[in-house]
Amino acid sequence: MEKPSIPQGTRDFGPAQVARRQHIFGVIRRTFETFGYAPLETPTLENLSVLTGKYGDEGDQLLFKVLNSGNFLVKERRGEITPLVTAEDLDAGPKVVLPKIAEKGLRYDLTVPFARYVAMNRGTLTFPFKRYQMQPVWRADRPQRGRYREFYQCDADVVGTDSLLCEAEIVLMIAQVLNGLGLDDFTIKINHRGVLRNIYQALGGEGQETDLFVAIDKLDKIGRDGVRKELLEKGFSEPTIDTLFALLGVEGDYAEKLARLMAGFVTAGVEPDGQRPTATSEDDDDAAYYRGLNELADVRDLLQASGFKQFDRLEFDPTLARGLSYYTGCIFEVKINNVAMGSVSGGGRYDNLTGSFGLPGVSGVGFSFGVDRLYDCLETLDLFTDTAETPTRVLLTHFDVASGRATLPLLAELRAAGIAAELYPDAGKLQKQFKYADAKGIPLVLVLGPEELAAGVAKIKIMKTGEEKTLALNEVVGALTV
Amino acid sequence: MEKPSIPQGTRDFGPAQVARRQHIFGVIRRTFETFGYAPLETPTLENLSVLTGKYGDEGDQLLFKVLNSGNFLVKERRGEITPLVTAEDLDAGPKVVLPKIAEKGLRYDLTVPFARYVAMNRGTLTFPFKRYQMQPVWRADRPQRGRYREFYQCDADVVGTDSLLCEAEIVLMIAQVLNGLGLDDFTIKINHRGVLRNIYQALGGEGQETDLFVAIDKLDKIGRDGVRKELLEKGFSEPTIDTLFALLGVEGDYAEKLARLMAGFVTAGVEPDGQRPTATSEDDDDAAYYRGLNELADVRDLLQASGFKQFDRLEFDPTLARGLSYYTGCIFEVKINNVAMGSVSGGGRYDNLTGSFGLPGVSGVGFSFGVDRLYDCLETLDLFTDTAETPTRVLLTHFDVASGRATLPLLAELRAAGIAAELYPDAGKLQKQFKYADAKGIPLVLVLGPEELAAGVAKIKIMKTGEEKTLALNEVVGALTV
Repeated sequence: MEKPSIPQGTRDFGPAQVARRQHIFGVIRRTFETFGYAPLETPTLENLSVLTGKYGDEGDQLLFKVLNSGNFLVKERRGEITPLVTAEDLDAGPKVVLPKIAEKGLRYDLTVPFARYVAMNRGTLTFPFKRYQMQPVWRADRPQRGRYREFYQCDADVVGTDSLLCEAEIVLMIAQVLNGLGLDDFTIKINHRGVLRNIYQALGGEGQETDLFVAIDKLDKIGRDGVRKELLEKGFSEPTIDTLFALLGVEGDYAEKLARLMAGFVTAGVEPDGQRPTATSEDDDDAAYYRGLNELADVRDLLQASGFKQFDRLEFDPTLARGLSYYTGCIFEVKINNVAMGSVSGGGRYDNLTGSFGLPGVSGVGFSFGVDRLYDCLETLDLFTDTAETPTRVLLTHFDVASGRATLPLLAELRAAGIAAELYPDAGKLQKQFKYADAKGIPLVLVLGPEELAAGVAKIKIMKTGEEKTLALNEVVGALTV
Repeated sequence: MEKPSIPQGTRDFGPAQVARRQHIFGVIRRTFETFGYAPLETPTLENLSVLTGKYGDEGDQLLFKVLNSGNFLVKERRGEITPLVTAEDLDAGPKVVLPKIAEKGLRYDLTVPFARYVAMNRGTLTFPFKRYQMQPVWRADRPQRGRYREFYQCDADVVGTDSLLCEAEIVLMIAQVLNGLGLDDFTIKINHRGVLRNIYQALGGEGQETDLFVAIDKLDKIGRDGVRKELLEKGFSEPTIDTLFALLGVEGDYAEKLARLMAGFVTAGVEPDGQRPTATSEDDDDAAYYRGLNELADVRDLLQASGFKQFDRLEFDPTLARGLSYYTGCIFEVKINNVAMGSVSGGGRYDNLTGSFGLPGVSGVGFSFGVDRLYDCLETLDLFTDTAETPTRVLLTHFDVASGRATLPLLAELRAAGIAAELYPDAGKLQKQFKYADAKGIPLVLVLGPEELAAGVAKIKIMKTGEEKTLALNEVVGALTV
């Protein structure tokens, strides 16, 4: 017999891991809900017509496709059977065969299903629509450390408003989740696509924004020399790249950087008057630039008015680009500083999420937590406090059949009080039962042998310390609910 | 552009539905945990080698299979490309093509993955192992009312003990969940495979147990005449069928039926001494029959000792067969009496769950809730109390930019107190904002215009009643946390 196994890049989560993951999900869920985001769940299976073409060519490759059910090789209609796949199709390759045998695929992210849901339910939804979604996604990526083929995303998005309150709230939610998890050494990086794009345009990179975004996005990984090399190869000049680095390299806190970029753009022909100009025209590159800076300033003001205190953890990073091309406004990315790990969260504003589903002009802003990375951070920093393999708080021993049966009323009483409790199912040696409690991490063992029952008492052993106490039976529940 | 859609038999769950489903999951989870069951999660994708052959031929047909990623038509090894699928394979049909292009499938139930997990982790698990699992499963069934292609199961199983405490606890858990959901008009049917099998054997049905199980299982659907017809076709005689119906038709409460079956089996040659005999030999059909009856009596005694009060909802039903052939001991099935709906829960004891994964002799007992059916019952009986489309408890109005900003400290305070709250993101007409609260089912609206802010007060409107109150700003959080 073949030994059973699970597919590459997938994982079983045993009791302790599920409990820890539930802890993370719980903190995120409570935060999202406290901010008025409502839960949405979409199917695991989506039509390939919905998924294909939304994630680029590479994404299409990484979609898991599901074979049509029944005899997927033929089409049966009114009793007539026609082959669907021919020998010529086989020669033509998977691109020809695929659409004939697979109509459905596994959810690749939570954004496209959300957009599909909004487009499908446009008539009944009340906007602004604030939704969160915590579900697994699947990618046929090459598995490696920290990269899985099945993993969870936790997204929150609001569509149907361009209020910057939403951006400020994203910062508040990120901070609340990370503080709630005890991951307090974090940096939330923020930037604005308008700022970035207009710098690029002023530098003569118009039409090459994507090259610039992609190159800048690698600053952390390949450093300035690497980025310079890549930009030179793409046809940017040395002086342009110098100016870019000068602009991107401005130092100072959030407010100082904003002020310097307001002033610094003089090199591109704008007066450094130190004032925040108001955007006057959407077509004006400079106006878009200043609008971006103004929005970043507004987000900061809204945070201040909301009592946000962790400005040392909020960094305006003009080099932050983020890869996804659909962002149009503020963008976010979050790192845990004391763990070597990619970003644990990111997001931004987009102006046209649902356009590809026939509903143009729906602006929104959203972000996502990577639960698997948060888990790894908490584990690396040893921040999980509970390592029990069971929710059980107290094990009742089972000395013999009669005393086992006599403990059942107490067991029922404990459970009615909400205390997770179990009676060891088989009568037998106490040593084995203590081992069981120890192996599962059950913190308390109640010894109820014939002697104890005759005396109307129970011995409680605290497993961690070995401490033992004797309690009257009718005091047990009270003592454990304190 | 094609209108976006979701695959047949799958569903989106909007905010109100997710909240209601979470309510059901919450009641089940708390019950499972209070009884000491620990959570397990297994991957959505399993190897087809694990899934195939476990659910019968029909089950194999209903498995969703996932195409191998990359070019699934060829094998590439050391730069050499060999076709995997040939024109002859196409002619030979899907059974030949399938194993060449698909290695993985979607989880079909939670029992096989659990067995696979136990077999894979036998070395590190502490037995008895009590696990619960609440995850979706997928079946390529023809969708119809109440039958979906993606649906949730909630299973609890304990393996590594044959203690009847576990059976008693299943009854307690079922009752606790249904009472917790307000579905209190339920019947838990219980029977024992040993009782059933030995009646059948005494009736000369040896070797035809499955025919009998399947026919009896249909009593509810096709009635006695239908079952009689089916059994006659299978070669059973009229007098045998009469005796069967007489035995299965015994009336009375749990204890009376037990007593009558103890006595009634005299027709098959056992003395009606009215006493519970003790099983003496496993090979003896009669002994197995009495062991079954004894176990059913023991389960009842354990329930009584545990303070179980709902014996009017626990029915010993000697006609209960349940389809699955792997059950060997007690079996359960649960119906909600005041809703026309199939069983909402079922389960039983099995002696060899993990045998097909190379770990024989692991006895266990488990059961499952069908969340989708529970949901439909609660909806039919109008038992969902909360119909809000959002977790938000209070909406703060946004009169103009200045007053909106001035409400931010209160908003932060409300959220810090754990009250889900939102400020309407855009300044504007209050009428629109009240409509928003109404459409989303937000119960409270706090009006904070310039007048209110100047006076240091807020007007609270209770949406359901239309009642309005004026509160000092510093009293708001206190008033809402009461």
